[in-house]
Amino acid sequence: MPELSVALCQINTVVGDLDGNSSKVIDYLVEAERLGCDLAVFPELTITGYPPEDLLLKPGFVRENVEALERVAKATADLKTVGVVGFVDPSPIGVFDAAAVIAKGWTVDVYHKQRLPNYSVFDEKRYFRAGTGEPILFKLAGVIVGLAICEDVWVADGPVPGEAKSGAQLIAVLNSSPYYDGRLAERQLMLAERAATNSCTIAYVNQVGGQDELIFDGGSMVCGPAGELVASSSTFAEEITAVRLHFPEPTGIGNYVQIDDAGKRSKPARPAGFGTTLVHLEPENITTEETRPPDLAAMYAALVMGTRDYVEKNGFSEVVIGLSGGIDSSLVATIAVDALGPDRVHGVSMPSRYSSRGSVDDAKELAQNLGIDLQEVPIEEVHRAFSASLAGVLGVPGVGRLSGLTDENLQSRIRGVILMAISNAKGWLVLTTGNKSEMAVGYSTLYGDSAGGFAVIKDVLKTTVFKMSEWRNDQAEKPVIPEAVILKPPSAELREDQRDDQSLPPYEVLDPILKAYIEDDMTAEELVYLGFDPGLISRVVSLVDRAEYKRRQMPPGVRVTTKAFGKDRRMPITVKPNRWGP
Amino acid sequence: MPELSVALCQINTVVGDLDGNSSKVIDYLVEAERLGCDLAVFPELTITGYPPEDLLLKPGFVRENVEALERVAKATADLKTVGVVGFVDPSPIGVFDAAAVIAKGWTVDVYHKQRLPNYSVFDEKRYFRAGTGEPILFKLAGVIVGLAICEDVWVADGPVPGEAKSGAQLIAVLNSSPYYDGRLAERQLMLAERAATNSCTIAYVNQVGGQDELIFDGGSMVCGPAGELVASSSTFAEEITAVRLHFPEPTGIGNYVQIDDAGKRSKPARPAGFGTTLVHLEPENITTEETRPPDLAAMYAALVMGTRDYVEKNGFSEVVIGLSGGIDSSLVATIAVDALGPDRVHGVSMPSRYSSRGSVDDAKELAQNLGIDLQEVPIEEVHRAFSASLAGVLGVPGVGRLSGLTDENLQSRIRGVILMAISNAKGWLVLTTGNKSEMAVGYSTLYGDSAGGFAVIKDVLKTTVFKMSEWRNDQAEKPVIPEAVILKPPSAELREDQRDDQSLPPYEVLDPILKAYIEDDMTAEELVYLGFDPGLISRVVSLVDRAEYKRRQMPPGVRVTTKAFGKDRRMPITVKPNRWGP
Repeated sequence: MPELSVALCQINTVVGDLDGNSSKVIDYLVEAERLGCDLAVFPELTITGYPPEDLLLKPGFVRENVEALERVAKATADLKTVGVVGFVDPSPIGVFDAAAVIAKGWTVDVYHKQRLPNYSVFDEKRYFRAGTGEPILFKLAGVIVGLAICEDVWVADGPVPGEAKSGAQLIAVLNSSPYYDGRLAERQLMLAERAATNSCTIAYVNQVGGQDELIFDGGSMVCGPAGELVASSSTFAEEITAVRLHFPEPTGIGNYVQIDDAGKRSKPARPAGFGTTLVHLEPENITTEETRPPDLAAMYAALVMGTRDYVEKNGFSEVVIGLSGGIDSSLVATIAVDALGPDRVHGVSMPSRYSSRGSVDDAKELAQNLGIDLQEVPIEEVHRAFSASLAGVLGVPGVGRLSGLTDENLQSRIRGVILMAISNAKGWLVLTTGNKSEMAVGYSTLYGDSAGGFAVIKDVLKTTVFKMSEWRNDQAEKPVIPEAVILKPPSAELREDQRDDQSLPPYEVLDPILKAYIEDDMTAEELVYLGFDPGLISRVVSLVDRAEYKRRQMPPGVRVTTKAFGKDRRMPITVKPNRWGP
Repeated sequence: MPELSVALCQINTVVGDLDGNSSKVIDYLVEAERLGCDLAVFPELTITGYPPEDLLLKPGFVRENVEALERVAKATADLKTVGVVGFVDPSPIGVFDAAAVIAKGWTVDVYHKQRLPNYSVFDEKRYFRAGTGEPILFKLAGVIVGLAICEDVWVADGPVPGEAKSGAQLIAVLNSSPYYDGRLAERQLMLAERAATNSCTIAYVNQVGGQDELIFDGGSMVCGPAGELVASSSTFAEEITAVRLHFPEPTGIGNYVQIDDAGKRSKPARPAGFGTTLVHLEPENITTEETRPPDLAAMYAALVMGTRDYVEKNGFSEVVIGLSGGIDSSLVATIAVDALGPDRVHGVSMPSRYSSRGSVDDAKELAQNLGIDLQEVPIEEVHRAFSASLAGVLGVPGVGRLSGLTDENLQSRIRGVILMAISNAKGWLVLTTGNKSEMAVGYSTLYGDSAGGFAVIKDVLKTTVFKMSEWRNDQAEKPVIPEAVILKPPSAELREDQRDDQSLPPYEVLDPILKAYIEDDMTAEELVYLGFDPGLISRVVSLVDRAEYKRRQMPPGVRVTTKAFGKDRRMPITVKPNRWGP
């Protein structure tokens, strides 16, 4: 019975870093060889990183990616291991999202992705031409192998059935599949079905790492022809997973390239022993999106990895965070310390006349718990100077004090300026602390609390911020985030006795509306049918629509849901809001 | 000889404003009837506005757009005029970018756009399914009419040849074609060729108005079957243009719907008298992109319309601008006054210890010339307060003075906070003044000079800013922008004797590099082949790549080139820059 050892090379690439990515591929090929693997499979667009976005419009960049692939292929000259590496394949009619089979120093064959996602965060039809044509198969250690790339395997009528019918026993799939809460289970369910339906084994290799808004969570796996999970890699970590697979002797239909003797083609018949096993998916065991609570551990890991990769891939080594003593900044600081260690995280407390003693103390306690430094820069003097300077223009009588929202935003912006000055002087990246509920309704100050380089929890609703903080505390012997921070009512502390629920509905009421309107794309009218209060819906929808201009100027942050603000939700700023629905 | 009167209804819609857009369509239908027109043609996606972006992902929004179309169709019950109106047509297999033929109170037929642009600023494959199938023709006043939508007519093998072969004498094309410098001439050239090749008349109706980054310039036109320009509408203005067209008697091939007697079908032969005339395009008279200077009048009109529409469609009535006495803010203030009138434009001068007397005086002179108010808010006191507050944290010895870039950015951010405070207190929109050269190399302060709601000249290179300022001065009897502003060397005035050319190459050298790297998508290596200095290229390319994070947080502004920053150029922030090329 033929036996094939496959290395799932779950690596973390950097977009545009052709040299660095290529070197990493070569290192992993050598390691796969050391592990005795016949085949080493890499993620989608290994050479360029994913997504390369408009770099793909530069023909020179595409040319250099081909040169990099050639260097990688050369490095296989003395290896027994055959590599399957993602790259961009140019042609006179357009560029393809491609997988190269590299062996013995050269590129044996090239597969072109056939299904191009152009929804959600994906814009692949902007860049790529879809592949067509006959399945590309190769025989290795007596086993016939077919290829697919990411979206190809998500559609039932993609290339997999044709390859399986042509004799493929193993389908190697290259992926750059972004994380969102619950995605890993969806992938496994789909792969089990695809493998079982086509009676083949699927080796699914996913990228790992953060790239701007996107997190690739790894979780590579092998599914057997009965839909069973044969092997799986870690999530949120680089890893090479070697799997030894046994196959029945192929008896030949279809064409394939024999790797040991390239160019020779034969017609093996369909392998026996497959074709009748059906997987039992047991739908009653599958939790639906509506009832499933978020997987806080995975989501937290995504936030940690996203933060670490954004900081490090962009050449920063340290970060600074304004610590108000509130729950958002406390959680962000905790994530930052888990991502970078306490020595690379700096806290700044910027109390005003409205800061409660409790909040200032809570920030100190948090910093102590985390082992990070905390410096204090009170904003009172600057606030006074601004008020005096602006009194003339804004026509406020003598006392040198602005009022209302103007004064609240002013305080927030003073803090933004302080953090940015520290960032400029020290070279530290500012992490912002706004959550998705605030981003949605515009409960934040442009250039104030939203000023910074990376918005760690911008896709986490406030109710999840609370749950995640409690979850994180439960992971340690002693709570990291002070209990008082979790228990006190949320407040921006920009005026006397301010509380969030004076301006907004309670987050337990607000968050389900936001989920339905934003993630589920309902209209105001439909929300009313769902039983939400019409007046409340009208107000919330109007707040969300009007805040689009603020969100357009927000820093990127980690995507953890099926619809994050950013490239995932592309709304016009100029729009007549609220004309549809009540 | 059959005669058909066509109304080109070049209207300005608002995205999402289903009621407002529908009412406007009805008004124009009534006006077309008054003018005795048989046919009234509207722009692409008339009912929803263009581009509706992710509103299209809300099924409820699409449903309400159909209801709005039905209301418009009903309004034609008593009209002789037949309307062709753009809307979104849902179906079980996806939604279509569609044109409805409405007459006598109902929708007679619906055409589906066949070619979907998914490049540059367009994402139509994200939303729409492409139409297929037989040409949809209708006969009106004895003339056979076919339909096409925007991109359909840009491709030689789109629906036009098939419709012409089936007997169409007139093709009505619905468009939302965005402006960039030189686009109008490209459109006319293409339409002349398409009309002549297919021996038909083309009535091309374009939208007009600003929508976030995009400007629709109108310029609707009719091209005759010899490629000749029969009629044209204004640019940058709403307009109804009635054109009386004469056609030979159709003699029948193909199927068409006869509007006066809907449902009856006959097979007219191909109209005689067409089919042999060739248009003489005289390529020697066509100026190429490389040698053509920008059309400053059109570009200026685009900036004026873009600013006016952003302000008004978003519910603002007044704007505020920081006037430094430099050329960028002077030009932006002039554009704003031309867009809104002097009473709705407010200037703020925010001098520091580094502001030259000349600059302060220049700002005053500009404000006087424009007839706008100018208030002064010196930043010295706030600057001193910040320096004192930060001295401890940033470890600057006793004098309370920050240094270098930190201090420069601080001053810029203080000005940003002042403008935003005025904006909050007065409800005025802040216009920012950065140009494309600065945006490209990151020569601006995040949350400082880039803070605001709309970045008027963000797609105008600095060398063009100079030319445009001179051009604008030439339009008036007395120069509006003081000569001193145009003549003095550019400076941010954030330290003693600062000049832009201390940090950047002269703009005459920089701008051609930026155009080649950004608009023409060359790599650093290719720029070296073009003869630019390798050291300079390496520096400029690195500056551009590193500034992506700043651009991501910039407000939107008017697109006037073939590649603006924003949705037009989608670059990763996290990227290893400069690894390709020297």
